[in-house]
Amino acid sequence: MKPRLMTPGPTPVPEETLLELAKPVGYHRSSEAKAILAEVSEDLKYVFQTKNPVVTLTSSGTGGMEAAVSNCFSAGEKVILLIAGRWGDRWRNLAKAFGLNAVVVEVPYGKAIQPAQLEEALKAHPDAVGVFATLSETSTGVGHDIAAFGKLVTATPAILVVDAISGLGCMECRTDEWNIDVNVTGSQKALMLPPGLAYVSISDKAKARIDANQSSKTFYFDLKKYLSKIAESDTPFTPANTLIKAQRVSLQRIRKEGIENLWARHARMARAARAGVQAMGLHLFAEQPNNGLTVITVPEGVDGNAVLSKIEKQYGIKLANGQDNMKGKIWRMAHMGYLDLFDVLAALSALELVLHEVGFLKEVGPGVAAAQQALAAKA
Amino acid sequence: MKPRLMTPGPTPVPEETLLELAKPVGYHRSSEAKAILAEVSEDLKYVFQTKNPVVTLTSSGTGGMEAAVSNCFSAGEKVILLIAGRWGDRWRNLAKAFGLNAVVVEVPYGKAIQPAQLEEALKAHPDAVGVFATLSETSTGVGHDIAAFGKLVTATPAILVVDAISGLGCMECRTDEWNIDVNVTGSQKALMLPPGLAYVSISDKAKARIDANQSSKTFYFDLKKYLSKIAESDTPFTPANTLIKAQRVSLQRIRKEGIENLWARHARMARAARAGVQAMGLHLFAEQPNNGLTVITVPEGVDGNAVLSKIEKQYGIKLANGQDNMKGKIWRMAHMGYLDLFDVLAALSALELVLHEVGFLKEVGPGVAAAQQALAAKA
Repeated sequence: MKPRLMTPGPTPVPEETLLELAKPVGYHRSSEAKAILAEVSEDLKYVFQTKNPVVTLTSSGTGGMEAAVSNCFSAGEKVILLIAGRWGDRWRNLAKAFGLNAVVVEVPYGKAIQPAQLEEALKAHPDAVGVFATLSETSTGVGHDIAAFGKLVTATPAILVVDAISGLGCMECRTDEWNIDVNVTGSQKALMLPPGLAYVSISDKAKARIDANQSSKTFYFDLKKYLSKIAESDTPFTPANTLIKAQRVSLQRIRKEGIENLWARHARMARAARAGVQAMGLHLFAEQPNNGLTVITVPEGVDGNAVLSKIEKQYGIKLANGQDNMKGKIWRMAHMGYLDLFDVLAALSALELVLHEVGFLKEVGPGVAAAQQALAAKA
Repeated sequence: MKPRLMTPGPTPVPEETLLELAKPVGYHRSSEAKAILAEVSEDLKYVFQTKNPVVTLTSSGTGGMEAAVSNCFSAGEKVILLIAGRWGDRWRNLAKAFGLNAVVVEVPYGKAIQPAQLEEALKAHPDAVGVFATLSETSTGVGHDIAAFGKLVTATPAILVVDAISGLGCMECRTDEWNIDVNVTGSQKALMLPPGLAYVSISDKAKARIDANQSSKTFYFDLKKYLSKIAESDTPFTPANTLIKAQRVSLQRIRKEGIENLWARHARMARAARAGVQAMGLHLFAEQPNNGLTVITVPEGVDGNAVLSKIEKQYGIKLANGQDNMKGKIWRMAHMGYLDLFDVLAALSALELVLHEVGFLKEVGPGVAAAQQALAAKA
């Protein structure tokens, strides 16, 4: 069986990147290692669409989120949290852990925060010094209008901090143009690497906050240290240097495709996925779906867990279940990482076959046919 | 040229472990992933020689050290720091970052902290709640008598926290028998993996402190979360799962050799290294050298940097320079990781050849001959 990993992280990694990981390990303080980090840092700026430094942390994406919270803010400072699911909740938990005064703007699972809601919150809380958002809320499949958020936040003293962990590199995300002050992502999503690295871009506005922060209690995630070291293409602590070296290979692939082409290809994959599942009579869970993953509401009378299990066991395709209390209620089909149009078609085919097998669908074909039409259509 | 990485981390990784890293990436919440983490956790207990849980963090070793400091202690609490070099200094910097009240017991570079010094400090500070030590001080090559430290600390309310990052797995280290409450190591030293993972063992005495700690400001390194998850062979945040899978392979190698055989082999390698360099008329920098690396004082009139550079360029052997203000003053030859007796012989041979080339040695041969005699000798 040919496995296809279609979860919203980790994602499939290109063969040439995997082979890089099998090469002998080098010394992390050599001039070669610095040259590699320099190249990776430049390519990350391209993927982030930023002129600001992007630092590399050896941690999961949550480590990058913690770095943003602990470095940019002091206990008691007021921040606005935009929460539309489990990953927005991670901002809430981090804000709590570091004693921030959180104003929460929240919508139910499946809904997206609207710019007008942020506008209202900013008006009601002119003393807020930070706004936390999520580009791709992978627990629900919602994508947020970060560009609109940025326009609102940039006019205030607050900084905009974005969790772009599962979106950056597959969805349009223009860090500088959209006024994102701190943008956080991880290696194991659209950047086509195994888990282990987090990347954080830092604007001048954010850096001023970091520099002014006297009360930060952090050491491993001290962004001042990372910023001073990245200027010499180095890191303050031993980095996962083989992952960095392999990241170079996946980033070269992204460079070669071109970031706008990559966004367009993921948009095409997402359109096909949405058309396919809707043609099977299924409903999208997200009111404002993003291009990194398609989240499907499990229809009445269908055992959601059993369907996923069949798709994996019979066809080798790993889709993600809902998390926590969403388990069994939604299916999450990611189309990010080293996947192409035909992997999406494969996933739709398997889903259609299994839904037919369990009696939900009378016939097969409309799902993949609709996807095929979406692939053929002009954007 | 055949490269030999003989720095005290990263270290060479066995081919079968590297190949594991080239395999397709899997989902980190699958039952397969949990079974792998369970196996790795058990094998880590064996390497640590502990019955207590060993948690896996996705970070460098410093992340593990931060976890120990931030979870076990509150700001203002008194701790004793045993500092004999740059890595002891890391404890000082961490204690400062988290506001601990640090009592420092310090010796000059090259010297080792003696148990009597700790005994005195414990008597003078009966209110100390923690003692921080370093098993292998890789900046100087000193090894500490952790067993003796443990005997002293266990009789007090304090917990013993050890940085065993570059020692565990190559030097004798018996976590439970030696009364180490929190033992921290990293993946990229004797455990024969690239950098990216830190491992932390936690005794009941340490756990009681963690549970009672209300003021801890940490999220990513919250050991309570890792302890509750490891009980179900899971992690709170996306782990570097391909590294964990590869760690299994290197740990199987350690299991197969047997931990006591492995300690004995490293002791033999260290004896050969010491005999070899002394037979070249060189001096050991550490008064109490450890078995993971041999640190050599650069003799008068020899350009320490140039010698290292020649060894690397002409013979492919990478030794480590001194760090910070020790640069050019010492050479650090690590013999840990996937290296054997003959790699040590290779390094001595290259060193002897280069010292001959630069005119420090009149003849070559005595160095490798002395090493050979040490290899033949009974321990």
